[in-house]
Amino acid sequence: MAGSEHYLDSSATTPVDPRAARVAYDLMTVEWGNPSSLHDRGFAARQALEHAREQVARGLGASPEEIVFTSGGTEANNLAIFGAAAALRRRGDRIVTTQIEHESVLNAARELEDQGFEVVYLPPERDGTLSESALAQAINEKTVLVSLMLVNNETGALLPVQAARRALNRCKSPGVLHVDGVQAFGKMELSPKKLGADLVTVSAHKIHGPKGAGALYVKKGVRVLPRAFGGGQERALRSGTESVPLLGAFGAAVELLPPVETSLPRVEALARRLRAGLERLPGVALNSPPDGLPYVVNFSAGRVRAETMLHFLSQRGVYVSAGSACGRAKPSHVLTAMGLPKERVASALRASFSWDSTEDDVDALLAGLAAGLESLSHE
Amino acid sequence: MAGSEHYLDSSATTPVDPRAARVAYDLMTVEWGNPSSLHDRGFAARQALEHAREQVARGLGASPEEIVFTSGGTEANNLAIFGAAAALRRRGDRIVTTQIEHESVLNAARELEDQGFEVVYLPPERDGTLSESALAQAINEKTVLVSLMLVNNETGALLPVQAARRALNRCKSPGVLHVDGVQAFGKMELSPKKLGADLVTVSAHKIHGPKGAGALYVKKGVRVLPRAFGGGQERALRSGTESVPLLGAFGAAVELLPPVETSLPRVEALARRLRAGLERLPGVALNSPPDGLPYVVNFSAGRVRAETMLHFLSQRGVYVSAGSACGRAKPSHVLTAMGLPKERVASALRASFSWDSTEDDVDALLAGLAAGLESLSHE
Repeated sequence: MAGSEHYLDSSATTPVDPRAARVAYDLMTVEWGNPSSLHDRGFAARQALEHAREQVARGLGASPEEIVFTSGGTEANNLAIFGAAAALRRRGDRIVTTQIEHESVLNAARELEDQGFEVVYLPPERDGTLSESALAQAINEKTVLVSLMLVNNETGALLPVQAARRALNRCKSPGVLHVDGVQAFGKMELSPKKLGADLVTVSAHKIHGPKGAGALYVKKGVRVLPRAFGGGQERALRSGTESVPLLGAFGAAVELLPPVETSLPRVEALARRLRAGLERLPGVALNSPPDGLPYVVNFSAGRVRAETMLHFLSQRGVYVSAGSACGRAKPSHVLTAMGLPKERVASALRASFSWDSTEDDVDALLAGLAAGLESLSHE
Repeated sequence: MAGSEHYLDSSATTPVDPRAARVAYDLMTVEWGNPSSLHDRGFAARQALEHAREQVARGLGASPEEIVFTSGGTEANNLAIFGAAAALRRRGDRIVTTQIEHESVLNAARELEDQGFEVVYLPPERDGTLSESALAQAINEKTVLVSLMLVNNETGALLPVQAARRALNRCKSPGVLHVDGVQAFGKMELSPKKLGADLVTVSAHKIHGPKGAGALYVKKGVRVLPRAFGGGQERALRSGTESVPLLGAFGAAVELLPPVETSLPRVEALARRLRAGLERLPGVALNSPPDGLPYVVNFSAGRVRAETMLHFLSQRGVYVSAGSACGRAKPSHVLTAMGLPKERVASALRASFSWDSTEDDVDALLAGLAAGLESLSHE
């Protein structure tokens, strides 16, 4: 981080790696063709697009044909949920998800409820995780879709995706398993095959790629219906001229990912340092489970409203979030579903790391919190 | 154009103006925050986003609140059509459009037919334009949506958008008027107010902005329902983290647009030169109407299949298209609807200009065509 800035909001977004940004720039100004054009400029753009697709596929241990590019995680989640539900409508009407999914899953599911689907929103455990047995019980032979995030964006809690696969198999359900992998991608192993996932959402801007690029992994043989209609790009699953510059930068960002074996222990150490420091602060309570992905540490800071503390920290160049960036000023639906008292929800902050976060960032946050608790608690 | 390249396919896509690409690069690497974040990094990104919105609004003579950013023209067309139809479903079930719209309009309309809407696809006149009286007759009091492109992407024909407005007013229809302005924006006056349009689609990559950015103008007070569900960005009409870099570049590209008063006469002269040259080539027939937007010149080159000629020209560094880029190798639905014989459709090529096209480009195309007709006609 430059100067005295301490950015601990990487689950909201990250800066684009300059090497990936350079790829985007060059694909805007040098190799700028339309990949659907049937001349050499078009072919060159097509090559760049397919190169990006291979890079993203490699990051998921998937085949390039299994990658459908989208404008981001929200569009990929929407395509997965509406697309799978529409494709399997005749086979059943039950959808199983949780109360702690991202808004792009929850609001798509609500829309499907309006269209007559029965949607089960499983509550989390008190620690933010999900009961495997409750999940298994909710899945039956009429279940056409199970949508689970692998890592919760507000707490880092890991959800039992593989248990959903087993339950679908056991009851011989026609249903597909969708995994929102946005917060997991690049930070832990994310293998659709090992998870038994049919559909997996990933996004570029959480891993130092650009905002406006994402992908849906669609397992070979799994059918989803399109949401965007037009020229038939992306195997007719997502029409619209592909943003070759952004997708090229996305591919580059995936290729630039540090190996999880080196990045995860680094971030684990940072999370340990932060948790230890938080425990020493009076009135601070951890909301993240102890065994979640260490990239996210959620905690409540005394009786200080999150927005107040956030503003205080921001003035010191320390950037965290209150819940998710998408939720903005609303009380967190995730912490509320976990059963935390209102006041603790209202004071909840999320610190989220990238692999380039530092001990300095952690210490600056801890110092800022200590000062904030001191000066704001008395107001 | 660099070296011996002659790019005459600007209706398919254009290179990004390096100044706009630089804006994107900086918004990826310097001011890279998430505009929904409630800290200074977020506020700065929000400012950049709203600056872009003002730039695009200014280009349309609209208010910033009337601009909904999307991932491109296809998404904007889909939002307009599905969104307006859903909002007005209880008021009527009739949709009026034409047979010569872009695939993102036609395929969205077909999807609505499957959902029970009655869609009228008006045929064009033989010259590619649309009869005002046929249009007026098709619009009745049950019409909830009229969707017309202002400029046809394959022929440059201008459609009588204002006549649709008058017809809607006359029969006191609740319907909204959607104008696909993708091929008009930046090239002729595109004023939603003067057109009487409720919804107008524009795209960045046809005007030296990046692929992956577009907008829907939504007139104040006009209601459309969302297609993308999630965090509620873009006034809940289009959820998903905004691609600030691309939208920033879009805004810059709009601001960099040359005034129509200087660019249009320039392109008119180029089109005249091309038409005159084409008339001198044996067996070449013009498919564009004489009074269309001069940015697009469609013609059929003897008995040579379009793909064959396209390949021949591409080898000489001259880039044109067969129909639209989106249609790829399919026979043009536009020229077919105009009633042109199959063979003439199969040999149809589109040359399309930008304001930086040159007489050299035109002459290179004419020379390439002459050589192609000479060597390919005898095969």
